[in-house]
Amino acid sequence: MTLKTDLEQIPHADELNLTDGLFAPDRVKRDTDTHLEREKNHSKVVGSLEEAVRLSGLKNGMTISFHHHFRNGDYIVNMVLDKLAEMGFRDMVLAASSLTDCHAPLIRHVKSGVIRRIETSGLRGELGEAVSKGLMDVPVVFRSHGGRAYAVETGKLPIDVAFLGAPSCDPYGNANGYSRENDNGIMCGSMGYAKCDAQYAEKTVVITNNIVPYPNTPFGIPESDVDYIVEVPEIGDPDGIMSGATRFTKNPKELLIAETAAGVIEASGRFQDGFSIQMGSGGASLAVARFLREKMLAQKIKASFALGGITGSVVDLYDEGLVKKILDVQSFDLKAAQSLKNNRFHQQISASYYASPGNMGTAVNQLDVVVLSALEVDCGFNVNVLTGSNGVIRGAIGGHPDTAFGASVSIVVVPLTRGRIPCVVSKVNTVVTPGSTVDVVVTDQGTAVNPRRKELAGRLAAAGLPVCTIGELRERAERIVGKPEPVEYTDRVVGVVTYRDGSVIDLIRQVKD
Amino acid sequence: MTLKTDLEQIPHADELNLTDGLFAPDRVKRDTDTHLEREKNHSKVVGSLEEAVRLSGLKNGMTISFHHHFRNGDYIVNMVLDKLAEMGFRDMVLAASSLTDCHAPLIRHVKSGVIRRIETSGLRGELGEAVSKGLMDVPVVFRSHGGRAYAVETGKLPIDVAFLGAPSCDPYGNANGYSRENDNGIMCGSMGYAKCDAQYAEKTVVITNNIVPYPNTPFGIPESDVDYIVEVPEIGDPDGIMSGATRFTKNPKELLIAETAAGVIEASGRFQDGFSIQMGSGGASLAVARFLREKMLAQKIKASFALGGITGSVVDLYDEGLVKKILDVQSFDLKAAQSLKNNRFHQQISASYYASPGNMGTAVNQLDVVVLSALEVDCGFNVNVLTGSNGVIRGAIGGHPDTAFGASVSIVVVPLTRGRIPCVVSKVNTVVTPGSTVDVVVTDQGTAVNPRRKELAGRLAAAGLPVCTIGELRERAERIVGKPEPVEYTDRVVGVVTYRDGSVIDLIRQVKD
Repeated sequence: MTLKTDLEQIPHADELNLTDGLFAPDRVKRDTDTHLEREKNHSKVVGSLEEAVRLSGLKNGMTISFHHHFRNGDYIVNMVLDKLAEMGFRDMVLAASSLTDCHAPLIRHVKSGVIRRIETSGLRGELGEAVSKGLMDVPVVFRSHGGRAYAVETGKLPIDVAFLGAPSCDPYGNANGYSRENDNGIMCGSMGYAKCDAQYAEKTVVITNNIVPYPNTPFGIPESDVDYIVEVPEIGDPDGIMSGATRFTKNPKELLIAETAAGVIEASGRFQDGFSIQMGSGGASLAVARFLREKMLAQKIKASFALGGITGSVVDLYDEGLVKKILDVQSFDLKAAQSLKNNRFHQQISASYYASPGNMGTAVNQLDVVVLSALEVDCGFNVNVLTGSNGVIRGAIGGHPDTAFGASVSIVVVPLTRGRIPCVVSKVNTVVTPGSTVDVVVTDQGTAVNPRRKELAGRLAAAGLPVCTIGELRERAERIVGKPEPVEYTDRVVGVVTYRDGSVIDLIRQVKD
Repeated sequence: MTLKTDLEQIPHADELNLTDGLFAPDRVKRDTDTHLEREKNHSKVVGSLEEAVRLSGLKNGMTISFHHHFRNGDYIVNMVLDKLAEMGFRDMVLAASSLTDCHAPLIRHVKSGVIRRIETSGLRGELGEAVSKGLMDVPVVFRSHGGRAYAVETGKLPIDVAFLGAPSCDPYGNANGYSRENDNGIMCGSMGYAKCDAQYAEKTVVITNNIVPYPNTPFGIPESDVDYIVEVPEIGDPDGIMSGATRFTKNPKELLIAETAAGVIEASGRFQDGFSIQMGSGGASLAVARFLREKMLAQKIKASFALGGITGSVVDLYDEGLVKKILDVQSFDLKAAQSLKNNRFHQQISASYYASPGNMGTAVNQLDVVVLSALEVDCGFNVNVLTGSNGVIRGAIGGHPDTAFGASVSIVVVPLTRGRIPCVVSKVNTVVTPGSTVDVVVTDQGTAVNPRRKELAGRLAAAGLPVCTIGELRERAERIVGKPEPVEYTDRVVGVVTYRDGSVIDLIRQVKD
């Protein structure tokens, strides 16, 4: 066809943001094979990881991102870094939503210069130890889950290429942590942390072992956020992916802490019909659900929603009708993943939706109660979930500061001592969550309420809970295991702990050998 | 707490994109009322539309956007423009996903200078007529649904404030076209066109008559995309919202066309198990589903998915197991909306996911077959769905050019004549969908195949379908109703028709009185 006119005939054309040039008459539609042939011929699936890397335009020094939904079963991070090393890449910024024991092979890539610096929520095992001992020239930047989402959204953490493992993906990139119809054994449930990366990365590569027919609905990551897909035989170890959470503790200390925490919730003034809660995946934290269930049944109280990393214990409450809705940023176990797949009110949410401080309506701000674990708490109620008593990095920030800030009542559950180590101390090695956002500390030998929360302290005391001061807890711990020797550090900074907004809340220094 | 160090101690701090300043020790958590009190006190709900407008920072000349999921029952566009007029705003750019008969009151706001220009998929009724007669100084820009999404995504159509009507919304902005648990009578199903606006607008205002408890899961628009919420008594007329589509034709001409179209699909070579399809909401287009159903049952063929604006006819196929999944950008009737609410494989998708040309995996590119209506088709297979035989604007582009481009086989169903008006002509008044992307034209008096598609023509002829040339169709139409008088236009351009990529494909001129 021939167009009758040109742009000069259009009044006020300069206001209309029209694309330069007129419609090109030779523009014809794509090949006209069938949908199924096209799926094969015109899909985003490329021949190899190497090809995806080349097509992505990745260059030395760029930032690559990963999610940690495969937890300690993850094969993706090591697979990609091995490939980048083989291809000769250098000075990469590795921005993972978290890293764990299985990522020890990264040490090699740091030493050889493939990785210049790391951003993560946590480090564990050999990698954490190596970093604490001075592995890296540039300090590791630690961010909370909400802080990372915020940094990604606001461009403080710009991602060049995201490499996202997915247990299901169709040829156009609709990816998820399960498949509602084509499971193949690997399942991680929610892809909450990966959603932000896919949305904001310049290029997104999905790595999957399970290509399913289009359209892979429901999807966690939409095709519109995906550029290339790589099929590999294995993306992770199912046992490692679904490990971690659901172990029902038989430890009497943990059970006592859990029972007390449930009592704190009951007495807090927030235990009303329609309340909302987040419970972590630690032993005591998990057990809280069981004690809370009894109280909910007895008082006919139902929760409006449960948030966060979701475990089978939460799903049990949902199945019983005690929790109306689940907002799931990370599914800790198979039961949680299967619930996300099947239940009508179990919703997958992104890290931003969950916890970004850039959003007033972020879900953590809707919490009545959060129950959180800790490595150490100090007399200022500051919490450390990142470094061990020897100063070595061995944990992860997770959503700790996000939920502590957001929830009406934040409860930290922690044994008074672990072996010969006191867990309530004068000053934590590393401040991750500031004491101004921590309301109650529950130990097996007493419960302390933040002096900022006088009314809450009164409620707990009135309910007959074993309330004391945080100083008294510290003294009790010291009486049992003695005053800990201060950790010996060098002056060298090996880690920077950021708060939710990206400001620096603490520094981690190299430990002395 | 006091931070032990300052940023100068951090090696390579300049690389780390740290937020300036250290953690402020006085940063404390928000008020500590309960979740339910907080929902009330700290929500995004503001007192009035006027307040939302003021808070949004809206200024003269800015671009405001709207969706058309309420179709001819929409109260939102007029409500907002009346308010802006009252508040003294001028020179606004009104960017709606579409406009229809009920928006005639906008004429007043154009005349008074409140609205300077309009972007839309379509115009109907008095507004269309007024624009065709020279109402506006600046031409109206028409975009397809995919083209609009693309323009919004790429910044060609930057939205300052989106005003989005929603049949359910919680106090933090999780909004949807229904509520899975708190319906109140108004329901529009998918919010596909609104999703892009919410995501890309500088500010998003949700206008709802139904505030539901947090969290309103599942949501079409996440809280993270919403800034302000306004509660109003009424957002639309349920009859108008759910009108339009599901009328089962008894018109013998339409039934004949539908039967032939189903025959074309059957013979096209794409009618295989796992094929995919989009069917429009016109009478003949709707009836195709019924004829196709019989063929699917007889040949034991199931579709992998149905796409687009969804009607009850498509849901019937889903319920029978003949369509495995539904991708829904717009729910045309109550049955479709209820299916989206309840069915496991009925998925809400955004306009971008549906049809944006910026995304290789966009759903229209996955179509085997699309059945489309038309006002006119010409001998170059160009299709007009925008202007009537008198040259007056009275239709909408919709997803017409998007799906015609994407589908392996695009079928246009059109009566040879409407009353005394020929529908197959030498040259359409307005080119909306270029003939290079239209494969088959089915009329009640013969079927023409685009000469580009020789193999397809052979298949249809072999199947005994009434194949002729498009020229023969035009001649038959002329024999019946005579050669139409050319429309008399002035030189003045009143509308710019853009193709999917934003290039200009045709101009609409002012009609002579």
